[in-house]
Amino acid sequence: MRINGERLIGNFNALGQTGIDENNRRSRITGTREDKEGRDFVVSLLNDLNLEVKIDEVGNIFGIWKDDENGDRGPVMMGSHIDSVIDAGKYDGSLGVIAGIEVIHALMDEGIKPDRPIVVAAFTNEEGNRFPPDKLGSSVYTGAIDKDEYLNKVDADGISLKAALEGIGYYGDMKVGSIKPFAYFELHVEQGPILDHEGYRIGVVENLQGISWQKVVVKGEPNHAGTTPVHLRKDAGLIAAHVIEYLRERALVEGNGTLTTVGSISFAPNSVNVIPGEATFTVDIRNPNEEKLSTEERLLEEFLADLASKNGVQITKSRMARTKPTVFDADLVNLIKETANEKGLEFRHMTSGAGHDAQMMAAFTKAAMIFIPSIGGISHNPNEATKDEDVVCGCDLLLDVVEKAARVTE
Amino acid sequence: MRINGERLIGNFNALGQTGIDENNRRSRITGTREDKEGRDFVVSLLNDLNLEVKIDEVGNIFGIWKDDENGDRGPVMMGSHIDSVIDAGKYDGSLGVIAGIEVIHALMDEGIKPDRPIVVAAFTNEEGNRFPPDKLGSSVYTGAIDKDEYLNKVDADGISLKAALEGIGYYGDMKVGSIKPFAYFELHVEQGPILDHEGYRIGVVENLQGISWQKVVVKGEPNHAGTTPVHLRKDAGLIAAHVIEYLRERALVEGNGTLTTVGSISFAPNSVNVIPGEATFTVDIRNPNEEKLSTEERLLEEFLADLASKNGVQITKSRMARTKPTVFDADLVNLIKETANEKGLEFRHMTSGAGHDAQMMAAFTKAAMIFIPSIGGISHNPNEATKDEDVVCGCDLLLDVVEKAARVTE
Repeated sequence: MRINGERLIGNFNALGQTGIDENNRRSRITGTREDKEGRDFVVSLLNDLNLEVKIDEVGNIFGIWKDDENGDRGPVMMGSHIDSVIDAGKYDGSLGVIAGIEVIHALMDEGIKPDRPIVVAAFTNEEGNRFPPDKLGSSVYTGAIDKDEYLNKVDADGISLKAALEGIGYYGDMKVGSIKPFAYFELHVEQGPILDHEGYRIGVVENLQGISWQKVVVKGEPNHAGTTPVHLRKDAGLIAAHVIEYLRERALVEGNGTLTTVGSISFAPNSVNVIPGEATFTVDIRNPNEEKLSTEERLLEEFLADLASKNGVQITKSRMARTKPTVFDADLVNLIKETANEKGLEFRHMTSGAGHDAQMMAAFTKAAMIFIPSIGGISHNPNEATKDEDVVCGCDLLLDVVEKAARVTE
Repeated sequence: MRINGERLIGNFNALGQTGIDENNRRSRITGTREDKEGRDFVVSLLNDLNLEVKIDEVGNIFGIWKDDENGDRGPVMMGSHIDSVIDAGKYDGSLGVIAGIEVIHALMDEGIKPDRPIVVAAFTNEEGNRFPPDKLGSSVYTGAIDKDEYLNKVDADGISLKAALEGIGYYGDMKVGSIKPFAYFELHVEQGPILDHEGYRIGVVENLQGISWQKVVVKGEPNHAGTTPVHLRKDAGLIAAHVIEYLRERALVEGNGTLTTVGSISFAPNSVNVIPGEATFTVDIRNPNEEKLSTEERLLEEFLADLASKNGVQITKSRMARTKPTVFDADLVNLIKETANEKGLEFRHMTSGAGHDAQMMAAFTKAAMIFIPSIGGISHNPNEATKDEDVVCGCDLLLDVVEKAARVTE
């Protein structure tokens, strides 16, 4: 049993050609003409397979393959998203949706009659550019955030998510959460360099990092760069540098599994000859273990308090975002590993550093993910790339995993 | 012999009330209505003393007190500037001009007939906000930069310096450099915290730091903060932090006299969850010794080259500005010290960290400076402040110094 690689790549590239904006960038932002174009293409593929197509109240699209015999059982769902960042590549999200459709197509081609319905889902607004937060569609679907509250949130132009979905004909009537899968699988590109760097074609994702985003503001004293002796300086920029160095040291602690990033910074007054009176920067800390992540947050807090008292500066921090780590279902993870072994595929255990719809689904049902390599780890960029043979390999593995999962009858 | 403190403070505060812009800020920017208002007030004071008033080709104002007996000798000149930054305090520059006028007034009151003409100068555009560079008026006057080139330079609205000066009636016909002083003295607020912090009322300025401004650009790789393991990161922001730490260490080297500041920074793409692919920052290095300043520049270059090769990033730097240190005239510095001693004033030897017109004059004639305290070191800010008694004390010292300097007949 194999998927049809040519058909998969053909459909995948066709979706990749949708949603090109007026600046010739691939930009399927939720509720735009470009988003509609991508959605319409996905729905056309679902219709070609005679799947039951449902749109829920937050615009999530479901293609449902069921029959009279399996219709009462919880389905096996595959999914991801087709919305994108501005000037995106074609792999992020789209791969999981098109691969899901191909898996159903391949099972149909083989004449398989699964014991469970098989569903492919395209979740709304995973990227969250226009309507924060990211993973909005799967978060509303699984009840993590309130449907009505987020449908009424407006974009920068005052247009609500509901109005934007209505505008493109994708505000549906299916109740969110009404299809409760027995298992959820998401095939995704890694969006990082590890598989490519280490030469693996498959990553079996065991867990997903918890993420702590904080904004730190250091208030020192803005003084003349030429007239203020070192011992009288309260240089907020120097304090920021201390924090950047400290965070890197934490990421180097052996076996700790912490990733730390200061991605954004500004000084005030930001003048060549004025000692920074204020430094504002973001801190991104990730760890797949909640206890370790909380420990890192506490250690940073202590480090900042110590810096403040030793240097006579004020340091305040505020939480921007915080998600707990996700541990994927051990049974499903083992199913993926066993299937990969049977297929002779060498795989690597992975922790996902990025957020995914599977993370929301993991709190709703059993879920797991399969990664395939991102060349050079490039992501959220038109240069995002994965070899066609790796796309086919990942989809083939998904096929066998789903086929097995649909055989389980409790 | 004493200056008239009440008159000095009265005139000083009156000048401070001129040049208030539509936002209620003291903003005497070169060639504006506000600048004209301040200039007109200064000229009125010069006229009140029946001084010969001359305006040169770059708008510098001179009030000349001479008679038939001393007119052939090189004058003793006092000066500074009355242009300001936007939202300025009232001390920076203005003090030196008003104090100079008061010195002449006091000498007249005493019936002194000096052996040399005495001149007070208000140089154009010392701050350089509208027409870079700073110290433009004294730089043109002393031939450090070309008169015609800089008269034709335009501001952000396309208005030339010449047109701006003509517009306020201060494009004069006196040739620049035509009054060559025998000695130049400038009384100025410290613009730094040292005198205030250490409790001195007088700083005798022996030299002025050389300044090296450089812009550094680090190019690493912008990657996903969650998916890129530490050993595959090329974090330009971390490299910037290394440089900030290094520069502070250089400033802490005992006896080195180096001041270092990273005042301005930006990351790209500057996003919370993206490793900085690029970091751009400025480096301000100051030292009163040219050899040491050059050494610091060389050491930084080596440090950056080492960072680049060890971290696999690209680092480029470009020179933004470079001035050599100024050493003030030893005879004049000694004259100030002796006079302060005679008056029982405790003083501190100072290196000026800021640039001043005296620095340009030092390459043209003998020059020296006197500092008085800036409370808290605050400068370029409406909260700039010095006690009235310190203003009077500084002006009194200037009076005696100038009176003595005018007695010297070669």
